[in-house]
Amino acid sequence: MSAVIYPRVALIGLGLIAGSMSLAMRRAGVAQEISGYARSKETRDAAREIRLVDQVCDSAAAAVEGADLVVLAVPVGAMGGVMADIAPHLKTGAVVTDVGSVKRAVFDAILPKMPPNTHFVGTHPMAGTEHSGPLSGFAELFDNRWCLVVPPEGADDAQVEKLETFWKALGANTERMDVEHHDTVCAVVSHIPHLIAYTMVGVADDLSRVTDQEVIKYSAAGFRDFTRIAASDPTMWRDVFLSNKEATLEILGRFTEELFALQRAIRTGDGEQLFDYFTRTRAIRRGIIEAGQDTDAPDFGRAHKDP
Amino acid sequence: MSAVIYPRVALIGLGLIAGSMSLAMRRAGVAQEISGYARSKETRDAAREIRLVDQVCDSAAAAVEGADLVVLAVPVGAMGGVMADIAPHLKTGAVVTDVGSVKRAVFDAILPKMPPNTHFVGTHPMAGTEHSGPLSGFAELFDNRWCLVVPPEGADDAQVEKLETFWKALGANTERMDVEHHDTVCAVVSHIPHLIAYTMVGVADDLSRVTDQEVIKYSAAGFRDFTRIAASDPTMWRDVFLSNKEATLEILGRFTEELFALQRAIRTGDGEQLFDYFTRTRAIRRGIIEAGQDTDAPDFGRAHKDP
Repeated sequence: MSAVIYPRVALIGLGLIAGSMSLAMRRAGVAQEISGYARSKETRDAAREIRLVDQVCDSAAAAVEGADLVVLAVPVGAMGGVMADIAPHLKTGAVVTDVGSVKRAVFDAILPKMPPNTHFVGTHPMAGTEHSGPLSGFAELFDNRWCLVVPPEGADDAQVEKLETFWKALGANTERMDVEHHDTVCAVVSHIPHLIAYTMVGVADDLSRVTDQEVIKYSAAGFRDFTRIAASDPTMWRDVFLSNKEATLEILGRFTEELFALQRAIRTGDGEQLFDYFTRTRAIRRGIIEAGQDTDAPDFGRAHKDP
Repeated sequence: MSAVIYPRVALIGLGLIAGSMSLAMRRAGVAQEISGYARSKETRDAAREIRLVDQVCDSAAAAVEGADLVVLAVPVGAMGGVMADIAPHLKTGAVVTDVGSVKRAVFDAILPKMPPNTHFVGTHPMAGTEHSGPLSGFAELFDNRWCLVVPPEGADDAQVEKLETFWKALGANTERMDVEHHDTVCAVVSHIPHLIAYTMVGVADDLSRVTDQEVIKYSAAGFRDFTRIAASDPTMWRDVFLSNKEATLEILGRFTEELFALQRAIRTGDGEQLFDYFTRTRAIRRGIIEAGQDTDAPDFGRAHKDP
């Protein structure tokens, strides 16, 4: 029984996140009319066919006309271009937000283009699946997931709070974070894990002495855990790494430093160092289980299927 | 309605694997009497209390007395010592197997100590959870999981087949592999993924600018996928890396080579290289889903809990 929060909402980009937002907004009753735009005609046609939003427009400018909330749900590298297109068409008092995984680069691309008497607040819903596109959305995507809210300096606090209320109505838990800290935290919990997973899968795919079929067949022995995030959208992730370069390279430097230390321990046969390291990492896993962020059921509680 | 395969079975080591084997043997009715031994008195007492096996012995020598099948379920580094203890007590015709994750080092530790008129065949059940110890076993652990069967050169084929029948009765699917190939495949699908997961969790734990609480709170963004295998038993994994040094270091070299190439692409802003790499890795994930080795349900089909 939520009340309407933003009567008219425009979604720019109609992929997994925007599609799920539309379905979650309908579920919550927080918007009266939802318009949408995607660059590709194929995506627009697909969205029209399943009535993903109330009105699919053929330009971003048309979609934002009269909108109280504009959501930029495009890859980080496309934010600046979209913003240039829509800026002249934003109504007075409009709130613009993005759902990008990186914030400093998005701020740099968007803030200079914001017209007077409009508001920008960044958000980052930490939710996703390995699927993408207009048909992949579902209303429950944000339920009990975190949405980081990143206000730029001098943001209107009432607008920030309203946006937090909106995300909570969509099912998420919100937490405010400043822009630099956001990008560092996300490099650690998301960007570097993705890069490493991509690398591991790439290495396995590239070996001649072990076949892809063997890798797939025996993947449950550990490798499989890496493959889910290594199937994420390539465009999105290219942009994340290009636009969060500094934090990514810093954490990556730390990672290779540690990896080399373990490699040396293996080479020299230093069992004590390996044992100590492997014991320490157990504790953080316990913390994740205790915080309810994962299950310790065997095999993640996956249903077993015949191989 | 399985028939008895090995009337008397001895389990040396009473951790997750041996405990699950005992429960699965009872379920299948493939043994008449199961004896067991563990080095630590605490483990022996716990196993006695829950009647994990029919008879807990106070020495490995006593446990293997009269056994038709002896299963060495101790860390890889402990195999040689255990084998020296039991060799004089094996009955004529006894079959010895191990369940280690590495095979060349186990062969080197065990084969020279095998008495005449006994048989050794290595096995590697690719199953586990993040829990260990005598209380962690369950009869279903091996159901529909792979068990690699690694016969040494000149092994008696009838004995190899009998052991395969045994593992199938415990629920597993079996596949034969030669010892060197086994160690390379396992380095790729299991050992290196574990090392990388341990490293990633160690890095996150060690940062001062991002707190453990933040890492745990936002772990669902990718990091969490690494933590399950980074909680595996430290002793077991220390021994794996020390005893599969050659294959581990080789695959690790490939991994860092690829990681550096991606790092350079990020530094120089080479979006095309990143995009191509991330597109290629998607295919192998699809193969895993299609082979029924994982689910593509959002969030692994995990039940959502309040964070």
